[in-house]
Amino acid sequence: MSITVEFMRRIAEAAATETLPRFRRQSEVSNKLSGGFDPVTEADRGAERAIRALINAEFPDHGILGEEYGAENVANSHVWVVDPIDGTRAYISGLPVWGTLVGLTVDGDAVAGMMSQPFTGELYYADGAGAHYEGPGGARRLSTRATTALADATLFTTTPALYEGDKRLRFDRLEQQVRLSRYGVDCYAFAMLASGNIDLVIEPGLQPYDIVALIPIIEQAGGIITNFDGGPAENGGDIIAAATRELHAAAMQVLGG
Amino acid sequence: MSITVEFMRRIAEAAATETLPRFRRQSEVSNKLSGGFDPVTEADRGAERAIRALINAEFPDHGILGEEYGAENVANSHVWVVDPIDGTRAYISGLPVWGTLVGLTVDGDAVAGMMSQPFTGELYYADGAGAHYEGPGGARRLSTRATTALADATLFTTTPALYEGDKRLRFDRLEQQVRLSRYGVDCYAFAMLASGNIDLVIEPGLQPYDIVALIPIIEQAGGIITNFDGGPAENGGDIIAAATRELHAAAMQVLGG
Repeated sequence: MSITVEFMRRIAEAAATETLPRFRRQSEVSNKLSGGFDPVTEADRGAERAIRALINAEFPDHGILGEEYGAENVANSHVWVVDPIDGTRAYISGLPVWGTLVGLTVDGDAVAGMMSQPFTGELYYADGAGAHYEGPGGARRLSTRATTALADATLFTTTPALYEGDKRLRFDRLEQQVRLSRYGVDCYAFAMLASGNIDLVIEPGLQPYDIVALIPIIEQAGGIITNFDGGPAENGGDIIAAATRELHAAAMQVLGG
Repeated sequence: MSITVEFMRRIAEAAATETLPRFRRQSEVSNKLSGGFDPVTEADRGAERAIRALINAEFPDHGILGEEYGAENVANSHVWVVDPIDGTRAYISGLPVWGTLVGLTVDGDAVAGMMSQPFTGELYYADGAGAHYEGPGGARRLSTRATTALADATLFTTTPALYEGDKRLRFDRLEQQVRLSRYGVDCYAFAMLASGNIDLVIEPGLQPYDIVALIPIIEQAGGIITNFDGGPAENGGDIIAAATRELHAAAMQVLGG
């Protein structure tokens, strides 16, 4: 099963009509969880409704799993996984490094997906045959870098504060071995990995809707993405993505030791 | 002394012809300091040469202080302060949150300035009479938020790893009192403060060229920016910028205590 770029463009445009007019407009922010700061805007909900309507119209028997409106018909072999705004903290802070994530799983495997950033006009997608970019600078094939050594690698993570105890010690050890580490950009970091700008992304505690759309983009660009145990990333959890198999193995050794 | 938006647009365009074609093109990165990672690309140098040429042609008796090519005629009362690419780590990682910074000081006071981001097509500037935005979504006046309490504030800093010893303890204490803290965006965070998207930016160890262009933008948008001692930010050092005087005072109390 592959999906066409035309359908991904339609999804990106439908989501953008909900997200972009409210970006940098101080829209009301509500707290979804009492224990933490998890902003959900009207943009988030509106975009997921728009995306679900398109999927339901085009593929009425497919399932959908979304961040905002939960699971629908997910016993089907084909399930779409939707995060209307990944990086809501970036969104409410005005930074153009959030994205709309939509991925397709077949029997649990992520086979196609897209990340769109409407403020910059970027679309990163994998259609089953390859990974591609459309946006400023033109269209091109995505390809990860050839970096194999930690000492040459640029590492991204949202914040080291997400790591606790032994996990924090291992992350700190990894950070000391890479060339450059940077914080703060959620899904956008995975797009930069697929496009050959950085080498490693580590994110703990992800949900499936945070990562499913990005798996095919990374894999079809030549990268590798797994959980910290080396298993499939589709179920979320602690996730590591790397430009090459060698770099993935080197990082896994530090994280696991 | 004020500067026209037309001149700032010309500066932004001249710099962009050097920076944008090399953005996301894996341009060669050299290490400027042997002790740390301070990437300087050809884009950085080319953009500063282009900016200096424009200033020299328009204001031949003015001084210039630039990151890449140093001081020129800085005994003049009017001195331009230039950072061709602020956020070089973002630049080499493909993230569109770096900026070209050009500010004008008169007798040491920053009176006008601009930050441009050519990938997104954004220009933030202060012309001496007010602070303004041009870019996606149209042109508008910049205005900081009305936030006065730390508990309501969003705080940005590049990375907590920049703080050491007692300074780190004080920063951690401040971070615990704000609503949301985020890392990683250099000059772009100050633009988000001026545009009313966030409330506080704290950056230690800045150089004059990192901050002079941003001072008028923040002040003419209604914000306040000083060093950690409450003195002028024009000389760089440890810098704190806030949406309101009350919020600045509240943050200073935590940082100073």
